[in-house]
Amino acid sequence: MNTDKQIAGKITPRHQDYGQWYQDVIREGDLAQPAEVVKGCMVIKPHGFAIWEKIQAGLDRRFKATGHKNAYFPLLVPMSFIKREAEHVEGFAPELAVVTHAGGKELEESYVIRPTSETIIGHFFSQWVQSWRDLPLLINQWCNIVRWEMRTRMFLRTSEFIWQEGHTCHATHEEAQEETMRMLDVYAEFAQQVMSMPVLKGKKTESERFAGALATFSIEAMMQDGRALQAGTSHDLGQNFARAFNIKFQNKEGKEDFVWQTSWGVSTRLIGGLIMTHSDDNGLVLPPQLAPIHVAIVPIFKNDDEKIRVMNAVEKIAAELRALVYGRDNLSIEIDRREGLSPGAKYYHWERRGVPFRIELGPKDLDKSQVALKRRDGGEKLFIPMQAVSSKMLDLLEQFQNDLFVRAKKFRDENTVSVDSYPALVEAIQAQKFASVRWAGDVAFETKLKEIQATIRCVPLAAESDPGPCIFSGAPAQHRIIVAKNY
Amino acid sequence: MNTDKQIAGKITPRHQDYGQWYQDVIREGDLAQPAEVVKGCMVIKPHGFAIWEKIQAGLDRRFKATGHKNAYFPLLVPMSFIKREAEHVEGFAPELAVVTHAGGKELEESYVIRPTSETIIGHFFSQWVQSWRDLPLLINQWCNIVRWEMRTRMFLRTSEFIWQEGHTCHATHEEAQEETMRMLDVYAEFAQQVMSMPVLKGKKTESERFAGALATFSIEAMMQDGRALQAGTSHDLGQNFARAFNIKFQNKEGKEDFVWQTSWGVSTRLIGGLIMTHSDDNGLVLPPQLAPIHVAIVPIFKNDDEKIRVMNAVEKIAAELRALVYGRDNLSIEIDRREGLSPGAKYYHWERRGVPFRIELGPKDLDKSQVALKRRDGGEKLFIPMQAVSSKMLDLLEQFQNDLFVRAKKFRDENTVSVDSYPALVEAIQAQKFASVRWAGDVAFETKLKEIQATIRCVPLAAESDPGPCIFSGAPAQHRIIVAKNY
Repeated sequence: MNTDKQIAGKITPRHQDYGQWYQDVIREGDLAQPAEVVKGCMVIKPHGFAIWEKIQAGLDRRFKATGHKNAYFPLLVPMSFIKREAEHVEGFAPELAVVTHAGGKELEESYVIRPTSETIIGHFFSQWVQSWRDLPLLINQWCNIVRWEMRTRMFLRTSEFIWQEGHTCHATHEEAQEETMRMLDVYAEFAQQVMSMPVLKGKKTESERFAGALATFSIEAMMQDGRALQAGTSHDLGQNFARAFNIKFQNKEGKEDFVWQTSWGVSTRLIGGLIMTHSDDNGLVLPPQLAPIHVAIVPIFKNDDEKIRVMNAVEKIAAELRALVYGRDNLSIEIDRREGLSPGAKYYHWERRGVPFRIELGPKDLDKSQVALKRRDGGEKLFIPMQAVSSKMLDLLEQFQNDLFVRAKKFRDENTVSVDSYPALVEAIQAQKFASVRWAGDVAFETKLKEIQATIRCVPLAAESDPGPCIFSGAPAQHRIIVAKNY
Repeated sequence: MNTDKQIAGKITPRHQDYGQWYQDVIREGDLAQPAEVVKGCMVIKPHGFAIWEKIQAGLDRRFKATGHKNAYFPLLVPMSFIKREAEHVEGFAPELAVVTHAGGKELEESYVIRPTSETIIGHFFSQWVQSWRDLPLLINQWCNIVRWEMRTRMFLRTSEFIWQEGHTCHATHEEAQEETMRMLDVYAEFAQQVMSMPVLKGKKTESERFAGALATFSIEAMMQDGRALQAGTSHDLGQNFARAFNIKFQNKEGKEDFVWQTSWGVSTRLIGGLIMTHSDDNGLVLPPQLAPIHVAIVPIFKNDDEKIRVMNAVEKIAAELRALVYGRDNLSIEIDRREGLSPGAKYYHWERRGVPFRIELGPKDLDKSQVALKRRDGGEKLFIPMQAVSSKMLDLLEQFQNDLFVRAKKFRDENTVSVDSYPALVEAIQAQKFASVRWAGDVAFETKLKEIQATIRCVPLAAESDPGPCIFSGAPAQHRIIVAKNY
C-alpha cells in the first residue's frame, strides 16, 4: 500500500501547508495546471472541465427557467467604451489586456479584451430597447474574460477565466432590484443544493462594490482554512451604464427614461470553492451531482479463470448502474480495466479524482454474492449483496450529497464567532474564523482591517436585529456583519 | 396583409440581390447584427444563439460518443509559438490580433489571440504524452477565435467567431488518418441528418490545405447562389506540430517517436450555411431539429368571450404538444399572446424566425373542433382535428426535416454539371453551378481559376473512376473534381 501511495503524487496535508495542499489536490485530481507560458493563466484539463460542464448545465437551466436567454457579444471592447463610466474605468484600468495591432497594422483605436461586458453590451442594448414593451430584457452570456492579475491561483484567480455574465434591463428600479435578488437566490440555491457548499447571502460594503454599480450582493462561502470565498455576485447597476450608453425607453406614459440594469456572474472560481469546501488530505472530494464519474469499479483477480468470473459480474453491475437516471443523465460508471496496476494503485487513482463511490469485486466477494463499497469521504467498507447494489445506489449518492452539505455547514457554524471587541476580533481572524461583529458603517474600520489582512465580507441579508455598540466606533449599530480573510 | 408585411422589415428577393437577401434574412430572423464598433465582428442575438446551442449540443454528444473529452486552453498564445511551424506562421501571420500591453505595462513578449490552437495545445500535449499508454489523446475545445479578416460577412466570415477545435495525438500515422476521416464523417452525418444540408466529403488541394497540415479534408455544401461553403474541416497534421513542440512518446517497443496528430473544426459559419441552404424570400427556414421553437400558436378572437374560449383550447393544445419528446428535449411551443397586433403581423413574425409550423385557432375552428396548420416552407393550410394535433406533430416535424434535405439535395444535383472543356467550365461557373471536371493535378489550373473567381473545392472521396483528359492540361486524369465559386 505504501508503494502505491508513492506511485501517486504526494498531497501535502492541510495543516502543514494549506496553499500547497490546494495545488496538490488540483494536480492529483487531474483538474488543471498552470499555463506558465501565458502569465497567470491555466489549462483546464478534461476532468476539471467535465465538472465545469456540469456546473454550466445546471446554472444554464436555472437561468432559462427564470426567463433569460443566451447571446454572444464581441470579445474586444473599444478602449473608449471602458472609459465612459467613471468608476468602471477606475476599477478595471489596471487589469486590462490591450490589443494594439491587428491584421499586420497598428490600430487607430486600441481594443481591450473584455474584463466584463457591461460597456459593450450596454452599447447594443441601447439599440435593442426602445419601449417598455422591450422590457424586461433578460440576457446571459457564457464566455471568457481577461483581467491581468498580479497574484494568481488556479481556479480562484487567473488572468483568463470562463464565466457567465447576466445583463438585464428593466423599466423600474424596483424590478431591477428584484432581479438582483432573484439571481442571488439562484446562485445560493445552486451552491447549496448542487455544490453542497453553504453560503451566506449578503450586501457588500461600498469599498467592495462592483465598479459602476449602485449595490453589489454576493454569496460568501467558508473555505477549510477559514477564509471567505466570494463565490458569485449580483449587481444593482441603477442607471449608471444606461446613462453612459444612452439606453433609453419610452415608458407606458409615453415619457422617455433610462432603463434600470442588473448584472450578475459566477465563474470557474466555483471549482476552487468546491475543492476547498470538501476535499481532504487524500485529495479531491466531489458532491455526486457534480462528479463526472459516480462509481469506479475495481475488479480484483489473480488469474485468467478469476478474471473471467469477476469481469462477468463487474460488467453486469456496471450495466445495471448505468441504466439508473440521476438528475438529467444516467449514472456515469468507470470500470478500471488497466493492466499492470495493483488494486491499491487503482484505489488511489479514483480517490484522488474525487469519485464518490468505489466498488471492489474479487473472487471472495463473488463467492458471497457481494461487493465491497467504499465511500470517498471515509468510513468503513460496506459489503452489499450484489443484487442490491443498483437499488441502493441512488439513495447512497443522495445521502453523500447531503452529508457533504451538513458537514460543511457544521464546519462553518463552528468556525463563526460573535465578538464584541477589537482584540477579540483579531484573535478570531488569527484563529481562521469568520467574525460576526456589530458595525455602524464607518469606512475607517475597513482601512484598519487591512492591518490584519481581513475585510468585511458582507452585511448578511438574514442578519437579525441585534442592537449594540459598533466594535470600531462604539456608535450604535443595529446588526452584525461578517469579517474574515478572503481569497 | 400588405400593411402587416410593411410592419415587418423588407426582405430583398434572392434573384434581385442575393447578398442583401442574406443580410435581410438574418436581421428579420433576429439572428445577429454586425458589431460595427468592433471591426468585422458580430453580435449573436438570442434567437441565433439558440440555434448555435442546438448545434453545439448535437456535435458535443457526437464527439463524446467517439471518445473525445473537452478541455480549455489559454486564449492568448505567445508570439514565438506561432512562429515555430513555418507554414503555420505564414498562413496565419496576416490575420493575427496582437496583445502588446497588459496590466498597465508593455509586455516583454507579445501574445496573439488564438487564430487556432495547434501551437498552444501542442505545447501542453508535449507534457501530457510520455508513453503509448497515453495514446490516443482525444481532446476537444469549444471557444472563441480571432482572425482579422478584411472582408467579413455575418456567420460566414467574421473577425471573431465561436467554434470547436478537436486536437488528437496517435501512435501511428494510420490511426491519425482514421481519426481524420472519422471526424469528417461525424461532420457529414451531422450536416445531413441534423442540418438537412447535403455535403460532399472531399480532400482539399495543396493550395487550400490548412497551414501546417499534411492533408486537409472538408465537407462542402452548395448554397442557393451556387457557391460552395466549406462547412467543416478535418486535418491530418502528420508529425509537423509534434516536431515543432516536441510531442514525443515511447512506443511499445521502447523507442521514442513523435506522435501523429489531427485537428478538426466547425464554427458558427454552420449557421450561415443553414440560412443559405433552406431560407426563402419570406425569410428564415429552419430544419426542426435545430429550430429553437417548433410550433407557434396564434390565437384569433374579436372579443373577450371568444378570447376565453379560444385561449382555453390553445392552452390545452400547447400543453399536449409540450409533453412530446423530440430528440432529447420536449417540443418548444410558443403561444403568441401579444396584444395590439393583427394575426397577419403575428404570422409574419414567426415566419421570419423560421418556426417550422404555425397553428391558427379562432372561434370558427373551435366550432369545427379543428386547427389550421401552416408549414413554414409553403403549401396549403391543413385543417386538422383538434384531438389529432399532438399525435401527428412528431411525424409532421420529421417529414419537414426530411423534405428540406431532399429539396436541397435535388437543388445541388440539378446544379452540378460535368464539363469537359474550359469554356464550358466558365459557362457553368457563370451560371452559378458546381462544375465536375477531370484534373490531372497541375497547380497552374488553380491559378487560372482565379480569373473566374473559382477554386477547386475538393477531390470528392466518393469520386468514381472516370478516366479521360484533364480539362486544363489534357494529361490523363483518373477522376473528377469539383470547381465552384465559394464563400
